[in-house]
Formats: sequence, C-alpha cells, structure tokens
Amino acid sequence: MPNSWAGYLAQRPRRVDFRRYHPGFRAGTLRRVREGITPAEALSCVLDETCVLGSEVVASRDAQGRILAEPVLSTRRLPPADNSAMDGYAVRRADLAAATPPRGVDLRVAFEVVAGGASDAVLSSGSAARIFTGAPLPPGADAVVRQEDALRDGDTVRIFVAPALRENVRNAGEDVEPGERVIEPGTRLGPAHLGFLASLGRSVVAVHQRPRVAVLSGGDELVEPDGDVAGGRIVSSNSYSIAAQCRELGADSVYLGIARDTPEDVERHLRAGLGSDVLVSSAGVSVGDRDYVRGALEKLGCRLLFWGVHMKPGYPLAFGRVEGEAGPLVFGLPGNPVSAMMTFEQFVRPALRKMAGFTALHRPLLRARLVEDLAKKAGRLNFVRVALERDGETWLARSTGSQSSGVLRSMILAQGILVFPAEATRLAAGDEVTVQVVDESVLARESPGF
Amino acid sequence: MPNSWAGYLAQRPRRVDFRRYHPGFRAGTLRRVREGITPAEALSCVLDETCVLGSEVVASRDAQGRILAEPVLSTRRLPPADNSAMDGYAVRRADLAAATPPRGVDLRVAFEVVAGGASDAVLSSGSAARIFTGAPLPPGADAVVRQEDALRDGDTVRIFVAPALRENVRNAGEDVEPGERVIEPGTRLGPAHLGFLASLGRSVVAVHQRPRVAVLSGGDELVEPDGDVAGGRIVSSNSYSIAAQCRELGADSVYLGIARDTPEDVERHLRAGLGSDVLVSSAGVSVGDRDYVRGALEKLGCRLLFWGVHMKPGYPLAFGRVEGEAGPLVFGLPGNPVSAMMTFEQFVRPALRKMAGFTALHRPLLRARLVEDLAKKAGRLNFVRVALERDGETWLARSTGSQSSGVLRSMILAQGILVFPAEATRLAAGDEVTVQVVDESVLARESPGF
Repeated sequence: MPNSWAGYLAQRPRRVDFRRYHPGFRAGTLRRVREGITPAEALSCVLDETCVLGSEVVASRDAQGRILAEPVLSTRRLPPADNSAMDGYAVRRADLAAATPPRGVDLRVAFEVVAGGASDAVLSSGSAARIFTGAPLPPGADAVVRQEDALRDGDTVRIFVAPALRENVRNAGEDVEPGERVIEPGTRLGPAHLGFLASLGRSVVAVHQRPRVAVLSGGDELVEPDGDVAGGRIVSSNSYSIAAQCRELGADSVYLGIARDTPEDVERHLRAGLGSDVLVSSAGVSVGDRDYVRGALEKLGCRLLFWGVHMKPGYPLAFGRVEGEAGPLVFGLPGNPVSAMMTFEQFVRPALRKMAGFTALHRPLLRARLVEDLAKKAGRLNFVRVALERDGETWLARSTGSQSSGVLRSMILAQGILVFPAEATRLAAGDEVTVQVVDESVLARESPGF
Repeated sequence: MPNSWAGYLAQRPRRVDFRRYHPGFRAGTLRRVREGITPAEALSCVLDETCVLGSEVVASRDAQGRILAEPVLSTRRLPPADNSAMDGYAVRRADLAAATPPRGVDLRVAFEVVAGGASDAVLSSGSAARIFTGAPLPPGADAVVRQEDALRDGDTVRIFVAPALRENVRNAGEDVEPGERVIEPGTRLGPAHLGFLASLGRSVVAVHQRPRVAVLSGGDELVEPDGDVAGGRIVSSNSYSIAAQCRELGADSVYLGIARDTPEDVERHLRAGLGSDVLVSSAGVSVGDRDYVRGALEKLGCRLLFWGVHMKPGYPLAFGRVEGEAGPLVFGLPGNPVSAMMTFEQFVRPALRKMAGFTALHRPLLRARLVEDLAKKAGRLNFVRVALERDGETWLARSTGSQSSGVLRSMILAQGILVFPAEATRLAAGDEVTVQVVDESVLARESPGF
C-alpha cells in the first residue's frame, strides 16, 4: 500500500505543489515534496524531524538498556566506614616496626570484628583484632595484616611484616560521597549501573521513553503466517521482520494488522496508529491504482516530506509527519522484504535511536577487504548484503548471492551491509570497502584476549 | 559467604586431598583441587565442564536472539510464481523490437493483473497487460516494461523501450525452493530470520534452551535495596548486577535471596538452586570463620574444581560442579562488587554463552592506545577498567580512576577492560593494548558510512 502511494506519486510531475497533498495548508508557506533525493539527504531530513522523547520513571530493576534522563547523585557514603580489604588482623603500626620474616612480633588477639557487626571496642597497644573483609576498622587500628602474613596460636598472633599506613584498609567514601554525581544523563544503563542504584537503595530512575512504533501492512493478497496461501496469497512477513527490528533496538511495536483494500479499512487501521511516535506502513506488494493510503494519510493530516531515495534496494520510500502536537513520523516502506528491512535499517532505526536518547545513532562500521568483483550502474547508492569473516586482523566481505530486492535470503545470510557509493560502478576483489555491521554478534571473539 | 569458603580454603595447606571436600568420593579417583591457577587455566577448566544445553520448541515470534538448534528447510517456493518487480506493463518482447525513444510502439491494454489476484488470461500478440509489483506474470508475457517507460492513453499504451528477456520479472523460486536448507543450526535468529519463518508459515522453531542461573547472596549484614542500612548493614547489590549480567546475555536468572548465617538457611537457599544450570553465590563480604556455604555444598554433592585465580580484581573465585546428572555448575564469586562482576564477566559469561549455543564466547576485542602510564606488581593478570574514546580510526583507553576492587564507580565508567598481562609491571602512555569491549554500545557510530 505505500507502493500504491508511491505509485501514485510516481505518476506526478517531478515537482509537485504541496497543496495537492494537504489542501488545508496555507498558501504562504507553500512547500514542495522532495523527490528522488540521496540517502544522506533523506537521513538528514528524517533526523531533522525527529525529537528525543521525554522521560518516564521506571523501576530501577527494569531500567536495563534504557538511556538515563537525569543525573544520578549518590545519597550515601560508600563504603559507609573505613573497613578491611582482607581477612586478617587489624593492628597498630607502631607495634610492628620490628616485624620482618623470619622474626615476628607477637600481639594479643583482643577481639574480633565481623562485617556488619557493630563494634565500639578500641584497639590498644600490643593488641590485634581478628578482622574479616568488609568489617569496620576498629578505633586505634591504622592497618590490616593479611592472615597469610600471620600465625595464630590461641589468643596470640605472630606477625611477620610491618604494614604500610592504612595498608589493606578501604577508606570510607572511597567509592562515593553523598551528593557526588555518579551517572550522567545519556548513559545507557548496564549491569554496573543497576548494581550501583541498588546499593543506593534507589527504587526508581528517570529514563527516556521507549519509542512506540505502530506497524501496519496492507493489501487484499496478504495473509497472516497461519493463513491459507492458495491462489497467489502471500504471508505478510514484513510486519514480523519490522517488529523484530524494533525489538532489537529497544522500541515497542504495536501491530495494527493487515488493512484491506477499502478506504474505510485503511483509514481505520492508520487511525489506530496515530497515538504512536512512529507509524510504519509496509505493503506486501504494490497496488498502485487502488491508492487508499495516500488519501487516508491526507485526511489524517500527514505532511509528506520526501518520496523516492536514490538507493538500491529501497527506492520507493516515503516519509512524512502527521502535523500537530505529537503527530507521529510516518514511514511508507517499500513492499519487497529486503527493501522494507533495508529502509528501516537506514532511516527508521536511527530515528528510533534518536528518540530513545542515544547520541551515536548508527551501526558499528568496519573496513573490510572485498573477496570478489562487484558492478552496478552509476546513480544509486547500493547497499550490498555481505557475509563477514575474520582473516587474522583483516575482515573479508563476500556478497550473500543474488542482490534482488525480492530475495530475503540475501538478508538472512548477511552480517554486514557494504556501502557501494552512488557514482561508483565497479569494486574489485581486494578493494577496501566500508561495511555497516548489522549482526553485531559477528564481533564476538573466540579468544578472551588473555 | 563464598569468601567464607575461600577463607576456609586459604587456611589449608597448598595442596589438598579432595576427600576432605567430598568424603563420599571413591579413593581410587582421588582428585585434588587446583589452587591459585591462571585466568587462562581457570577459563579452560570452566569451559571443559560446560555443556551446550538441549533444545526446546518456542513460538517463532519469541525466538529472536535465540540460537537455532535445527536446520530450517523451506516448505514453500518463494516467490510462488513468476511475478513483476515493477509497476508497469507485461509485454511480449517480439512486439517491441522497434521501440526506441522517441519512437514508441503502441499496444492495446488487454487486461490488468494485481498482486494476489487470480488471472488466467493469456497475453496475445500486440497486447500489453497493466501489471503491478508482485502480480503474477500472465502466460504469454516474457518481460515487464516500467510505467516510467510507457505512456498510457485510454486502452492504448505507447512503449519506448525494447526490454531484455524477462526484464523486471522475478522468477518463481528465485528466493527459495521447497526443501532448500535456508537457516543453519547455530544461527542467532534476527529480524530477517523471523520474517522468513513467517513467510514459510512456521509457527514454532527449535532453539537451544536459555541457561537458568540461580543467584544467591549471603550474610547477616546484607539487606535488600529497600532495607535499613543503619548499623553498618549494606545493600546486597551484587545480586542485582549479576542478574543484569545474566539478562544482558539472554540467560534467565532466579534470585534465591539472601541466606542468613545459619547452616540451615544456607543449605535451604542453595538447595533451591539445584534445579538450575548454574548456581552463582555471591557474598556481601567475607565472614571466614562462619563457613556454612562450604559445608552445605559438600552436603549437596558439590565437587570443587579450583579455588583462587591469579587475577586482580577477583582472586578468591571458587568453581565446582554438583555431581550427578544435570548437576549445576557452581561459581563462588568474591564479595567485592567489582570482583564479583569481573569474575562473572571472565568466567560465568563465556560458560553461559556456550550453554546457549554460541560458538564465539567472548567479547569483541580491540587494540587501543593507552593515554597514561600504568604500573603493577608482577604475578597477577590485571583487568583494568577503561573508558574508550575514538580518535579518528584509533581507539584511546584511559583507566576509570581508582582500580580498587571496592570501587564500583570504576566499573560504572568503563566501556572496556584492558588486559594487563601477569608478568608485565608497566605500561606506558602510547603503548598499544588489548581491550575487551564490555559496553558494546561504544561501537555505535555517529555516521552511517555514506
């Protein structure tokens, strides 16, 4: 169905009076739909229209992977008191000046301090206190001797080393003091942050909202995966891959189902997505002359910003936004499975990451050596699906076979997307190329680095 | 509490008769606990004991991120029939031999084919069929002309190009034929795989089970995050960071709570974790002489395999396995927050990835330039927490401040872990170092590569 919109648009003159698309628009701000633009122009247009979402307060335990929207200040001193870093004996250094192996100094073990135990006992000269890791250093002590450097015999301990001042002592506040700013806004919350929030007793935290994406497909020929594919019907698989692409980057997707080819059903489905941050419409195939999506979007106040991007796969991409406060971004993705995934990858994904509060919006990039020749016509940037393989410290890239936009297998086998620039017509085996890493698990290693 | 176990062990002679730890063990298979081994030896021991988990059948929609445990064979021909790759006109090439711009050839538009529509009409000579992307190619047609290359006037279309054979036609089975093996076992299922499973109508798929990890902490001094920290009590934060580390890699964690310092409570808590694949015990602090974990583990049939790894942070790590069919691996992590996270990262994480079916078990590695001098004693491999920053194509690594194992902040600020080899004592600013990337979001880019 976006193809139907696209199909309609393709019939238009190259420059179009925007008023045709939005009759209510004021003449004084006449706008033109940009058509046939470069991927870089399209991306820039999309990101200009995309705002970082506001914050919400979630339980700290549920904040993993979210982007922090406030600074986290410590409310506690950690550790709360001077304490022992080792199991051993708390001592007064003055008593041990003469301790050198094999000669030791004998101290009386006056008391014991365990972690979490309250102890007001003061360590007096000639005494040691049995102490365990994390236990508070008793008043009077100024160092801890590891138990490996001591020999216990009943109430006496012989110590063989003269410790340095505060050796094996962790100082109160060494980790943080109250009021210190520990986690900055914009941080992606990982395991260490969750542990730290727990240690502060913070039950909730403000994070950026997750983008809500409404996913729609349309066409009388489409069925759900459990549907009957007799008579040329095909499964509406794009909505499944798009939902998975949303999930992968932490966005919530709502599936609006398959709109049938009537103006009423299309409008009803689109209207259900107006409360979302992003509306992604994907067609099974084009049905150009039965163009109900465009009409419905117009009726819902969608302003079209561009149509057609000089890339392959994925030329027939449409982008706009529903006007008014909190109107969703609207992406009309092409219907071919590979084109739909590729245009999502290049334009929807960065927009969703921006909304979620990320600053680095794009995939890891690497330089790889191409292992075969590739050729194309000049004019469109090609996104070539490639398998990646490590050869020592070099990456090798090989295309995943037929690059037809109907061949989902090219995407199934791909770990990367090779950027074949618009004006280039040939890449030779051995050339160094730029690859976007879409399956980041390919970066995992078989060795730990030690 | 693992430190109590560790504390106990540290008092033993350097080589210990295993029978002390497992009195029921047969004398003929006398085993010794390995003590004070290198990180590489410890990792190798852990992975030798770790088996890949069996498979389970899950709904295809829920299989994202899971590792496929069976080959996926196509049950359908995709596309099911020859179809059009474009909106345009299905034609017979023989009719268009003379078509060259500006001279066109006029054809009668005999009928229309839409995607999903059934059409048995045969295209006869001198005719064209209006066709839309994805619609089946009518019998008689051997190419499709794009609508941009044609001019429609009522029932006639003037065509300006002579297409190549099957130009703009997608062949039936171009993507897959029935019986073709499309996704290999061991593949991590991503969006393209889920889309493909949908297009086959596959509702379920066999994947490797997710490891189930039981997480336990212990000590009278520990409280939950909402607990009262007066009187030297501290929050049991390790269980929160460990649960998050499990979640990050797709393992399920079950929190067994805080065991109190009585033999009964410790045994009760440990017993609750026996049905898991991995039992991770973490202590708030050491309470060496109140060693109930060791006794309880013995009672539950745990065979200790090593204790103590020459690394910093994280020396006092214990590893064993409960004997018998499906007995869990047991990790006794040190109690310091940084040591607990680091030993999980280096040993528990690779084991869980192996269980889940991954072949590359370790983090991405990169070579970075150190921006400061670092020094340590020889003997222990140090895992230095570093912040990573890009400088053109070079990575810069800078330590995150105090590397004390009590300073969780060093972990909060870290994107990487620098491997400072055991025998090295000094690294200088400008040196090239190996860094494990623990916050993989640092690899994301601010440019898309085009």
